[in-house]
Amino acid sequence: MIHAFSGGVGGAKLARGLVDVVPAQALSIVVNTGDDFDHLGLRIMPDFDSVAYAVAGLNDEQRGWGRADETWHCKESLASLGVDTWFSLGDRDMATHLLRLSLLKSGLDTTSACAEMARRMGIACQLVPMADDPVTTVVLTDEGELPFQDYFVRRGCTPRVKGFRFAGVERAAPSAAWFASLSPDQTDGVLLCPSNPYVSIDPILALAGVRSRLRDVPVVAVSPVIAGASVKGPLAKMLGEMGQACTPVAIAAHYQDILDGIVIDSRDAAHEPELRRLGLRVAVCDTLMTSRDVSRELARRSLQLLAECGASRAA
Amino acid sequence: MIHAFSGGVGGAKLARGLVDVVPAQALSIVVNTGDDFDHLGLRIMPDFDSVAYAVAGLNDEQRGWGRADETWHCKESLASLGVDTWFSLGDRDMATHLLRLSLLKSGLDTTSACAEMARRMGIACQLVPMADDPVTTVVLTDEGELPFQDYFVRRGCTPRVKGFRFAGVERAAPSAAWFASLSPDQTDGVLLCPSNPYVSIDPILALAGVRSRLRDVPVVAVSPVIAGASVKGPLAKMLGEMGQACTPVAIAAHYQDILDGIVIDSRDAAHEPELRRLGLRVAVCDTLMTSRDVSRELARRSLQLLAECGASRAA
Repeated sequence: MIHAFSGGVGGAKLARGLVDVVPAQALSIVVNTGDDFDHLGLRIMPDFDSVAYAVAGLNDEQRGWGRADETWHCKESLASLGVDTWFSLGDRDMATHLLRLSLLKSGLDTTSACAEMARRMGIACQLVPMADDPVTTVVLTDEGELPFQDYFVRRGCTPRVKGFRFAGVERAAPSAAWFASLSPDQTDGVLLCPSNPYVSIDPILALAGVRSRLRDVPVVAVSPVIAGASVKGPLAKMLGEMGQACTPVAIAAHYQDILDGIVIDSRDAAHEPELRRLGLRVAVCDTLMTSRDVSRELARRSLQLLAECGASRAA
Repeated sequence: MIHAFSGGVGGAKLARGLVDVVPAQALSIVVNTGDDFDHLGLRIMPDFDSVAYAVAGLNDEQRGWGRADETWHCKESLASLGVDTWFSLGDRDMATHLLRLSLLKSGLDTTSACAEMARRMGIACQLVPMADDPVTTVVLTDEGELPFQDYFVRRGCTPRVKGFRFAGVERAAPSAAWFASLSPDQTDGVLLCPSNPYVSIDPILALAGVRSRLRDVPVVAVSPVIAGASVKGPLAKMLGEMGQACTPVAIAAHYQDILDGIVIDSRDAAHEPELRRLGLRVAVCDTLMTSRDVSRELARRSLQLLAECGASRAA
């Protein structure tokens, strides 16, 4: 079994490569739920939906989030009813939120509801939310604490970041659906997708027992930064505000207690020696997933590095 | 104060005429909630929304229900997720259901949520659900009991009707928002809109205290049948299956214990003598509301007849 920890967009792009190269029954994609929130009575799960849409081929490549061939008539009508439409819900995307609402209201827990939705989208691998218990990412900023979506969507990531906390994480257990198989005898290792370490991967790592379990299995990160920039999202800005460089070295340092290897972009090859000095195995390749082909090749290289890390641990 | 009791389409057409001729603060439109149901976690209120859309000018004239300029992308996407889309929810209409869900989840009762929605649609008169307590219209058929929407939408009204019951009505009180003003000193009378007597008006009449209160105030019905047919919906079929003729006389008989007068279509003028023999005041005019002008004129004639009935009672 391969486990992949993922946030939204960047993780979704690697996930669509992983499903092409890993047999479905051997792949477990674990998705951050720290960004989830309630909106207009619906349970919105942005990262889960991004990964599901990408894996199912329903995603909008251009926009980078939401569904292809989307329209916005419900949103327009909400606005004309005086509803603040700061969070954009597309008409096709709405079907996902309604089905989820209906499944949750029928009594399913989040994991079971997500499994049913993945099944209906024709997703064969395990695609699973990190936890059933609610965990809410809160961004600590120079303007005070902000729930993640407020920081990210409403404020456009403008406040200066001072830190993060994951409200509820102390009472949240990782979903048994994936955590049971995260043991040295059952997993070939964990890929940390090229998602934001602070707000996409750290919530998963913060769940009780996860970080310590990761010390016993091979872990490879795919760097979410390329040539001093983040591909999408506020990571570069966050790293700067947290006093870190926007380099694969900073990413490796962030994960230092759990990491065996790291995949970096060719444009960051100069960092390879320093990463090796930190005791890491390093793969260098194209990590900018501009097409499904690149995603597939990056998935292949990442799995190869993960296998090398596993072999090295076994030796 | 004028009270108008209404179901969906036919009532909605008279309502848009009433708002043109009655000052907003003197008009209370009371809408059947017996057709309301939960669907995909949403609270659907078909009659309330039909009247609200018509009064606000948002309705689709051609289709006869739902919103103008509607699209169906959410519905398409629900279908592709394997959701049974027997009940059609349009993308623009969805905004109404989401806003309602959000207002109900915030703790508002149905009446308050509906008042807020009407306000946001720019509706100035009182537009109010008949009750906060749930009442569910059940159609007794030769195939057993069917919830109204199952009978109406899913089965296309094909089962033979044997009767009706309003589940929960014995525990349901009329909403105080309108019932408080339904007294001889406060109301000029009640108009029964040209809606289906069995499934649109009877649920309102069945609420505790309503029927007896109606005996003390002038009541005028606008006939929902014209020349032996119902304008829309299953009323003609229902009347036949219930052993009644499809005439204004059958409508008058249905309401006999509360009715002072009836407005009938010119094509039914031959029934006028028989209606007068029943002790009713009768107005004869065009009741087929093919335009807002006809709605307005019918509203005017109905109010005139109601005033005559009131004057006759006072004399």
